[in-house]
Formats: sequence, C-alpha cells, structure tokens
Amino acid sequence: MFTAETRLVVRYAETDKMGIVHHSNYPIWFEMGRTDYIRKMGISYSEIEEMGLFLPLIELKCQYKGAARYEDRIIVRTWIKEATGVRLVFSYEVVKEGESHPITIGETVHVWTNDRLKPVNIKKHASGIYEIISRALLTESL
Amino acid sequence: MFTAETRLVVRYAETDKMGIVHHSNYPIWFEMGRTDYIRKMGISYSEIEEMGLFLPLIELKCQYKGAARYEDRIIVRTWIKEATGVRLVFSYEVVKEGESHPITIGETVHVWTNDRLKPVNIKKHASGIYEIISRALLTESL
Amino acid sequence: MFTAETRLVVRYAETDKMGIVHHSNYPIWFEMGRTDYIRKMGISYSEIEEMGLFLPLIELKCQYKGAARYEDRIIVRTWIKEATGVRLVFSYEVVKEGESHPITIGETVHVWTNDRLKPVNIKKHASGIYEIISRALLTESL
Amino acid sequence: MFTAETRLVVRYAETDKMGIVHHSNYPIWFEMGRTDYIRKMGISYSEIEEMGLFLPLIELKCQYKGAARYEDRIIVRTWIKEATGVRLVFSYEVVKEGESHPITIGETVHVWTNDRLKPVNIKKHASGIYEIISRALLTESL
Repeated sequence: MFTAETRLVVRYAETDKMGIVHHSNYPIWFEMGRTDYIRKMGISYSEIEEMGLFLPLIELKCQYKGAARYEDRIIVRTWIKEATGVRLVFSYEVVKEGESHPITIGETVHVWTNDRLKPVNIKKHASGIYEIISRALLTESL
Repeated sequence: MFTAETRLVVRYAETDKMGIVHHSNYPIWFEMGRTDYIRKMGISYSEIEEMGLFLPLIELKCQYKGAARYEDRIIVRTWIKEATGVRLVFSYEVVKEGESHPITIGETVHVWTNDRLKPVNIKKHASGIYEIISRALLTESL
Repeated sequence: MFTAETRLVVRYAETDKMGIVHHSNYPIWFEMGRTDYIRKMGISYSEIEEMGLFLPLIELKCQYKGAARYEDRIIVRTWIKEATGVRLVFSYEVVKEGESHPITIGETVHVWTNDRLKPVNIKKHASGIYEIISRALLTESL
Repeated sequence: MFTAETRLVVRYAETDKMGIVHHSNYPIWFEMGRTDYIRKMGISYSEIEEMGLFLPLIELKCQYKGAARYEDRIIVRTWIKEATGVRLVFSYEVVKEGESHPITIGETVHVWTNDRLKPVNIKKHASGIYEIISRALLTESL
C-alpha cells in the first residue's frame, strides 16, 4: 500500500488565540495530502475534474492528540484505506518532523460523481483511473 | 435539552471551485454554534478562557449530505449530547433556511483543560460552570 | 450616498496566536459588506453572476488602526466611492459595536467582466444594474 | 538587496466559485514569504516573538493582475523595501512557476511593538535584529 508524504510549514494565519493550529486546518492539510497522493499516482485531481469527474467528501473524522505551532515543520502521511468503483476512503497521519507520534489522525470518505454531483461507478466511466488506484493499493512505492 | 439556533449567510470566500461551500468551513460553523450556545447559557467562552479554562477539541466528525452555496441563509443547530466534569460532547445540524433536511451533521468532543492544556475536572475547578451546563441539559429553552 | 451596515461576531477561527483577528480576515469581511450592500440595492451578487457578469477585485488597500478579538461584535460599513460602466470602487470602515473610531478602513477596486473574465461595460451590457448603482450613489437610504 | 523565493502549491480550499484563488489568500502567501525571508536571514519570527517583540501589520496593498488555479505551482518573492528602527516595509511578487509576469504584487507595512502592542524602536531594544535586517538590505544573497 503506497503512502504519500507531504511537507508543509505552519502558517501564522493557521494559528488561533490558544497559540496552536486551529483544528479546522487539518481537513485542509488532509486535502493537500490527497492532492499530492493522486499526483504521485501519475494523474492529477485537476485532470480528473477536467474529465467531468468529482470526488466530493461525504464524511470526515479527525482525532486530535497533540498540537502544532507556528513555523513547525509538518509531514502529512496519506494512504488509501478502501477503494471500490463508487467510493474511496483516505486515511491520514499528521506528524511533526523528527517525531514519531502523530498529532492528528483522520479519515475522509468520498464518492465518485459526475459534474452535476450525481454518483457514478468509475469501473465503467473511467476504468483507467480505477486501475491506477488499484495499483497504488498493491504497491509500496510509486 | 436546550438547542441553540445560530444564523449566518454563506460568504463568497467560503465557496470553492466546485461552486459549493468547502467542507473545511463546517467545523468553523460548528464553532460559531458552540460559541452562541455557551453565550445563550448566560456565560461566554471568552470569560471561560479568562478564568484560565480551555475546551480544546479532541475529536471531530462530520457527515455531508447536501451542499450550501454563496448567499444561502444557514441555520446551525447546536446542543450538548453529553457532559461530565472532564468532557463535553456537542452535536450539530446545519440546515438551509426553509428546509428540513440537514445538509451537514456533526459532533465534536472536547476536554476541559487549564491554560497549559492539562486536563481538569470542572466539578472541582469551576462548579458554577458545571451547574450551568447541567441546567441546559435539563431544559428546553433558556 | 447609501451606506450599508453589516453585523458579525468574531469567530474563534479568525483569531491568531497574537490573540487578535488575523489581518487576512478583513478582506473577507469587506466582501460580506459588499454582498450585503448589493443585496440592499435590490439585486444580489449571485443573480449578477448568473447573468454571466463578474466583478473581480483588482486592487485592495487596508489600514489597520486597532484590533478585534474573539466574540467582539463588529459592524462593517460599506459604500460606493466611485462607479463607471467598467469600474467600481468600494470603501469600508470596520468598527466595534459601541465605538466610533474604526479599527480598519479599506478600499477595493473592481472591474466588470464576462464569465471568461474579459472586461465589459455594463452601461451597454447591463444598463439596469448601472441604473441601480447610480441611484444608490444619489440617495442616503434604500 | 536580498530576495527570498518561497514555493507553494495552490490548495483546493484556496479556490472560490469563480474557479480561481480567492483574493484573501494572497496576504497569507505574503506572510509565508515574510516568515521565510526572516528565517533565511538567520533568525525566525517565532524566536522574535519569544523575545517579546511583535511586528503587526498596519497597512496592506495588493494589485491583482492575473489568476492562480488549483494545483498551480507558485513562487512568492519577498524583499524589504524600507527599514528603520520602528518600521519595516516588505514588498512581494507572486508568480506562477515558469512565467515572468507576476499575477499579484503587494506591500505590507509593519511596526515593531512589545507584547502589549506598544511601539518600540529595535535600534535600542533589539539592536542585533536591526543589524541582521540592515545586512539583508545590503546584500544580494544570504
């Protein structure tokens, strides 16, 4: 199973009055991880959308175990937990560089839709994409 | 059980290239609901923080069932699902004005901490706040 | 000259580690003011976009004179400073409820474009909108 | 005069319903450039804040000349335009990788303050920082 590692540095605007990264930023970091994961598979989510396919999020789960601060160097680890023709589940781990325990873990559930947000099965509508995803699930590195 | 209703109008900046509200905004709307809920109980979260008490979020769950668009009039319904001396669980429903089915539902789990983010039991450290919360759980309107 | 007053309560997510509202939120508040101003003129910016007209921002200026904090009650005052068939300049004042000195003042310059972001003259393409704007410039209240 | 180059990839959450990066993100990108600039001078803005010194923004100017889209690779160029003991002016240019014309240019004016946001003169209070900045203004590379 391929895992993408995406790096970022905490922005000042991402902190809140508690002095730590506001929890609403983690879903955005997950999305950066997802974008990067798809790009590393050899396609890009921009191209997928240009084909008239979308992958809206229908469920989000986060567990916060630690805090990140301004200028912290962050790694987002992203992998696919589950993939069918209609559904995709991504898992995430957010760690600070040089640390082993994640500060946040999460999961997002997505469905494949057309550009009017109606569900589609990519095994039929975009079998090439389905094959690329299946390959990522079977390999360690891309 | 008291439920707070908080109103907002979708901001342009909250939309994304899909033309709908980006999913990362719902946790921020939940937080507006939470702030408003606490204010309607007769205290304010600002005052709670000035007392050296914090309520960081340790878990977030969202289910997305529909979409909101720019200028949509939104109602966030917030209630307390569970309250102990150390933990608080809020539930949320986001609906468009005039509609009955929520577009998003969610839950956030919080723990009470001091200003160094160490867990505390408010039954001991801030019994007045614990009583106010208990009362909100037993009543329909405040 | 008509001035719109738009109210908001500072969100926790809008604060930063300095304990005050991060400066990047003021352009978003200006946009709320602009949306509200247009709605109060009797049209809506959503409808304008549905007509295939856009009003992208080409210039932004802000001066920060004070700070806003979590839960502060804010008023955004918005008015049109200048309007031609191709260009629109909005001015803004952000004040805390009950105070007279603005904490932030600003200005945004916009051009009218079609949906491919090419400049258009609304005197020709949407004279009805031009008339509504001209009227707002000549009156105190709408 | 030293210029820092900071790279980023446009996030999905940074786009709006027009399909382009919402204008409120550029001030955040400027801030990333500023953070990076200061780090490249050999200090860090986190350390400066730990010394009890702050650099709040009192003025912001942006000119938007083009648009950025999801997944675009962006370079933020940052340099110091003016520095005295009490004031610092940063200039910015945002370009897409491989292009020469900036899509956005901007300027931010800052004042040095203590932790109660009162103005200070760093020639007196932190002469080491003043020297580091003066050196960055006289050199091409750090």
